[in-house]
Amino acid sequence: MREYNHDAIRATLERARAGDRALLGLEEADELARAAGIAVPRSALAASATEASGLAAGMGFPVALKVSSPDIAHKTEAGAVIVNLASAAEVEQAFRKLLANAKSYKADARIDGVLVQRMAPAGKELIVGALTDPSFGKVVAFGLGGVLVEALADVTFRLTPVDAGEAARMLRSVRGSALLDSMRGGGPVNREALASLITTVSHLVEDFPEIAEVDLNPVFATPEGVQAADVRILLDFSPPVARYRPSQQEILSAMNRIMRPRSLAVIGASAEEGKIGNSVVKNLIGGGFRGAIYPIHPTLSEVLGRKALRSVKEVKGELDLAIFTVPARLVPPLLVECGEKGVAGAVLIPSGFAETGNVALQREAVEVARRYNLRLLGPNIYGFYYTPENLCATFCTPYDVKGKVALSSQSGGVGMAILGFSRSTKTGVSAIVGLGNKADVDEDDLLTFFEDDPNTDVVAMHLEDLKDGRAFAEVARRVSRKKPVVVLKAGRTGAGARAARSHTAALAGNDRVYDDVLRQCGVVRAYSLNDLLEFARCLPLLPAPKGENVLIITGAGGSGVLLADACVENGLQLMAMPSDLDQAFRKLIPPFGAAGNPVDITGGEPPATYRNAIRLGLEDPRVHALVLGYWHTIITPPMVFARLAGEVIEEYRKKGVNKPVVASLVGDIEVEQACAWLFDRGVPSYPYTTEKPVAVLGAKYRWARAAALIY
Amino acid sequence: MREYNHDAIRATLERARAGDRALLGLEEADELARAAGIAVPRSALAASATEASGLAAGMGFPVALKVSSPDIAHKTEAGAVIVNLASAAEVEQAFRKLLANAKSYKADARIDGVLVQRMAPAGKELIVGALTDPSFGKVVAFGLGGVLVEALADVTFRLTPVDAGEAARMLRSVRGSALLDSMRGGGPVNREALASLITTVSHLVEDFPEIAEVDLNPVFATPEGVQAADVRILLDFSPPVARYRPSQQEILSAMNRIMRPRSLAVIGASAEEGKIGNSVVKNLIGGGFRGAIYPIHPTLSEVLGRKALRSVKEVKGELDLAIFTVPARLVPPLLVECGEKGVAGAVLIPSGFAETGNVALQREAVEVARRYNLRLLGPNIYGFYYTPENLCATFCTPYDVKGKVALSSQSGGVGMAILGFSRSTKTGVSAIVGLGNKADVDEDDLLTFFEDDPNTDVVAMHLEDLKDGRAFAEVARRVSRKKPVVVLKAGRTGAGARAARSHTAALAGNDRVYDDVLRQCGVVRAYSLNDLLEFARCLPLLPAPKGENVLIITGAGGSGVLLADACVENGLQLMAMPSDLDQAFRKLIPPFGAAGNPVDITGGEPPATYRNAIRLGLEDPRVHALVLGYWHTIITPPMVFARLAGEVIEEYRKKGVNKPVVASLVGDIEVEQACAWLFDRGVPSYPYTTEKPVAVLGAKYRWARAAALIY
Repeated sequence: MREYNHDAIRATLERARAGDRALLGLEEADELARAAGIAVPRSALAASATEASGLAAGMGFPVALKVSSPDIAHKTEAGAVIVNLASAAEVEQAFRKLLANAKSYKADARIDGVLVQRMAPAGKELIVGALTDPSFGKVVAFGLGGVLVEALADVTFRLTPVDAGEAARMLRSVRGSALLDSMRGGGPVNREALASLITTVSHLVEDFPEIAEVDLNPVFATPEGVQAADVRILLDFSPPVARYRPSQQEILSAMNRIMRPRSLAVIGASAEEGKIGNSVVKNLIGGGFRGAIYPIHPTLSEVLGRKALRSVKEVKGELDLAIFTVPARLVPPLLVECGEKGVAGAVLIPSGFAETGNVALQREAVEVARRYNLRLLGPNIYGFYYTPENLCATFCTPYDVKGKVALSSQSGGVGMAILGFSRSTKTGVSAIVGLGNKADVDEDDLLTFFEDDPNTDVVAMHLEDLKDGRAFAEVARRVSRKKPVVVLKAGRTGAGARAARSHTAALAGNDRVYDDVLRQCGVVRAYSLNDLLEFARCLPLLPAPKGENVLIITGAGGSGVLLADACVENGLQLMAMPSDLDQAFRKLIPPFGAAGNPVDITGGEPPATYRNAIRLGLEDPRVHALVLGYWHTIITPPMVFARLAGEVIEEYRKKGVNKPVVASLVGDIEVEQACAWLFDRGVPSYPYTTEKPVAVLGAKYRWARAAALIY
Repeated sequence: MREYNHDAIRATLERARAGDRALLGLEEADELARAAGIAVPRSALAASATEASGLAAGMGFPVALKVSSPDIAHKTEAGAVIVNLASAAEVEQAFRKLLANAKSYKADARIDGVLVQRMAPAGKELIVGALTDPSFGKVVAFGLGGVLVEALADVTFRLTPVDAGEAARMLRSVRGSALLDSMRGGGPVNREALASLITTVSHLVEDFPEIAEVDLNPVFATPEGVQAADVRILLDFSPPVARYRPSQQEILSAMNRIMRPRSLAVIGASAEEGKIGNSVVKNLIGGGFRGAIYPIHPTLSEVLGRKALRSVKEVKGELDLAIFTVPARLVPPLLVECGEKGVAGAVLIPSGFAETGNVALQREAVEVARRYNLRLLGPNIYGFYYTPENLCATFCTPYDVKGKVALSSQSGGVGMAILGFSRSTKTGVSAIVGLGNKADVDEDDLLTFFEDDPNTDVVAMHLEDLKDGRAFAEVARRVSRKKPVVVLKAGRTGAGARAARSHTAALAGNDRVYDDVLRQCGVVRAYSLNDLLEFARCLPLLPAPKGENVLIITGAGGSGVLLADACVENGLQLMAMPSDLDQAFRKLIPPFGAAGNPVDITGGEPPATYRNAIRLGLEDPRVHALVLGYWHTIITPPMVFARLAGEVIEEYRKKGVNKPVVASLVGDIEVEQACAWLFDRGVPSYPYTTEKPVAVLGAKYRWARAAALIY
């Protein structure tokens, strides 16, 4: 399939494996690159100064000389490279100098020889590389290279493999991408050749997983093509242990029984007020769950009016779900009973597992679960809510505002924030799920369930790590084509640099890889807890936009400026106003108002002006989304505005015109009531902020683009 | 003072002025640079190929050749530069090629000759430049240069002149500043030489204001020194018109009478409910203003129980302030009466001036004001509030929550957001001022007043432009040493590129200059309306931190991670935990809790653990600020946490220990009440967000650093 010489690459790798070498020598790295179809300048290894000058004469001046040593990974720092040698004499002198430098850098460095390399034609200096991420596996990188590589750290990452389209997007993703087109310094580079180099590297590390890291730095890119002037290849012959990964069908089958159980047991049910085992039963009953509820307790005969059993084994008929509220140490033996009973899933509320250092106990629970093909949620969680089934399998207070967003959190604290925020804002929710230690069920299991769940239109997840980033990425990529997946990744700034010997890996601060890969998979990333919550609240309310044309209609010029700022910051495109539409707006607004975009209808206008302007925006098919800016006046008070906006939007929805509309209301406190009123009618509306409604619209657009609904 | 040859520079400029040339020729630009003490490579102008090769031989190879033409500003694009010429033959060939290129680029280009220039020693390629900003005047720039200049746009700006310290900060302000130290590509540059070059350019454009733009690009920086390999100088002999700028004493004298009037008149007072002239009088009376209030109306005898007069001239005794609520066209003649009466200031509420295109009417009002030395607020504003005097000089509803923050807005809509937000959050306010068209009084007048106002601890301003950025910068720099100045600059993304012929000016997108200059002046910039409002609300509550050590104490590990993320993003320094303090925390928290920073006391802890941990953080003098993360549990419910936190903080305040403390509360809706309770006790606390409290603390730190209170 690839154009590369598979056998030659394999042979080189096997030689290195046999020699137990993790770093390829310079000559064999060049050879491997050539075998992979990567253009590298002519090069050969010399053992003596005379041999070096002879080789140089053969390939033509100028040449570069580089010490090849398994003990020198960073040649420039070691003074192990001399470039631009233009004569035999210079080459011989450089040869001796290099050996001296290498010796003074590391007295006992093993020297394979000195690589003589024809100088590549100068061009834009770039880096192409690959690394093995502990969570995502193979990742390919592209960025500005040469001396700039560390100073600018302007690099972008993608899961391997990438196709030509994704590689082309990588070229546009770096901050300095204009450099590729710049006429200064030699004209635009050959983008096709560069993209092809990226795809080649991405396939190379996929096809030969023992290639752990690749640095092509610098890659010289010219209008003619690309050449990798320096190739560094690091190997790792110990493959990572794969995480348990059931099939999509297995996940669905188990998750359906967990989220929509016909019967469930509460193991550790308690009659005592304030106990977790009591709260859970109370919430199940009070929440309105209509399936069978079996309190399990060794001695009690009933709990909150429900007959208690001594063991899950006493349950007649099938049992789908067991909720554990017993101390941690009791979990494994009771899990065995669940397994024998054929329970599909266990919700492990108790703490006292890996998070407190008791890794063995957690491992034991997982082993039992695997043995009986039983899935575990948690441990160390608040439980979960699934509102379509009136299911509150948690010790927290019930939640019953049904809606289309499913939320999950790795942390209990964040879960409580989800609950409080949702209640305070009346956010319609399908599920809230605690994942805790993620001993078993993790985000990709949840995503797989929510993908097919007709009650869920949006999935919003808080996570601190991904146990199997590759699996998550694959599922997220599939799901995000159907419904938005919003992710708040915590711990994004603290990630220390990993020990890495390649530039590529050193640049891959944990969060950069997350950021790029999540975007690659169509995930909408939230960068703050409040954004996660607001996106979750609003995305189900907004229809998908059908195009990029955003129009701002505002009563306050000052808000209009801030709304326009927010649009640009959120990557939204302010519609270039067609002159006929501009004229139509001008007919509605006072002569000193401003048409264009924003449309400034000015502050002293009556309700009719707002109404007509919004109507015009909804009616014109060239307008794809509206941002409304309201300014509190006596002539058009807040609730009058809210009602008229709500009415007009509803009128057009009935006609089949459903565009995303968001609103910013500035004014005295009456605007708060007006915002709540509009929210209830599906219009995300915020007081005292111009940025929040636009951020919400921006999130919807990010998803719509990733799902290829527009363009 | 400067080391440069003043007479030589003056002579060059006068020659250009005589020749009506806006672009200096290459040779004279080099000469001017040398006269200014800027190192440039040897160079001379050649009229023929032979002369060029002779000059080159004299200065030594390699050389560069550049066409000198007033019609070619961007030489690289025109193919008007050839570098690295190593022999006489190459020079002569290049000479002919350049002339051909110039001709094909622009057939009728005037050619002064071809500059022969000794090649500068290669080094890091940087840009140093200067431009004339329409608002701020002379601005100096530094950034990454050469082929990277447009691609990376990595440039920073400062008001001129800059001293060595500020220049050194500029070197650290660019994203790629690590390049200056990088060992790759030739070792660290000589920072002193580079800083000195920046200060020289900054003084040059100050001392010779007709130098409108300077590009030194590339500047080659090496460990030895710096050389400007290409000098471009643009001139402008028409000086800008200076804006009216009274002395600090004059401003204070007028502003004191405006903000603290003993007597005031409402011109256009009305007895009719709903009229602006009625609302203003009602608010003045209802707000509790204790000075004299004179309704002015041609026919009415009283308004809302106050005796009405026909003209301000009928007022007995001194009149400080006149509030206009008449139609725009009536303003100028009535202003004349105010002027004759000796009124200090007029609040021009009416619209219908420049904002509707009626520039002439506005100019007329300003002329009257100047004639009578009367200051104008507005026109086109809601008026203003000054709570220490119970003064509500506005048609909006009264506001009476007294406090230490003064706010201003250019836009009425934003003013209404300020009012609504303040009322909703019970923000303590000293003043809210509308500035509108800023025909006269602008932000620097307000700042000058608030600087000395004992009722104001923080000034927060929304602005869309600065009529005189230089004046604002000077006042802001002075004021921000005493009290925080927060600015929301709207219109920051829409600013189109100005027509500019230098790289420096092209890079100075309006907002970049604002961003850098505001920071240079110690202003805390808010990047969203909500941030402006929250910073205004919180900064007066927080004491100034005494050092950089921030400690997070959290009940929820998940919040701790998000709080740490937020700290890093807001430029806060997480304290490296001393081992004795770490031990002390470990004694308080469960064994599986995590000391270090964040201190994770874990979720199941009783109030005493929170209490003891907060106490420890307040007590240790090495800790300078606390970020609290609370997690809603049954054991420590929200209000229990709020009360204990409030008590401990109060206890230490009484002992004289007053550190900034902020809190993030996650949990069910009861946390909202707990946050309000803590806010009332001076602890900025937010539910459902980890980022907002940290952003507020970050704003306080930004100010404290700018005011040199820490470090």
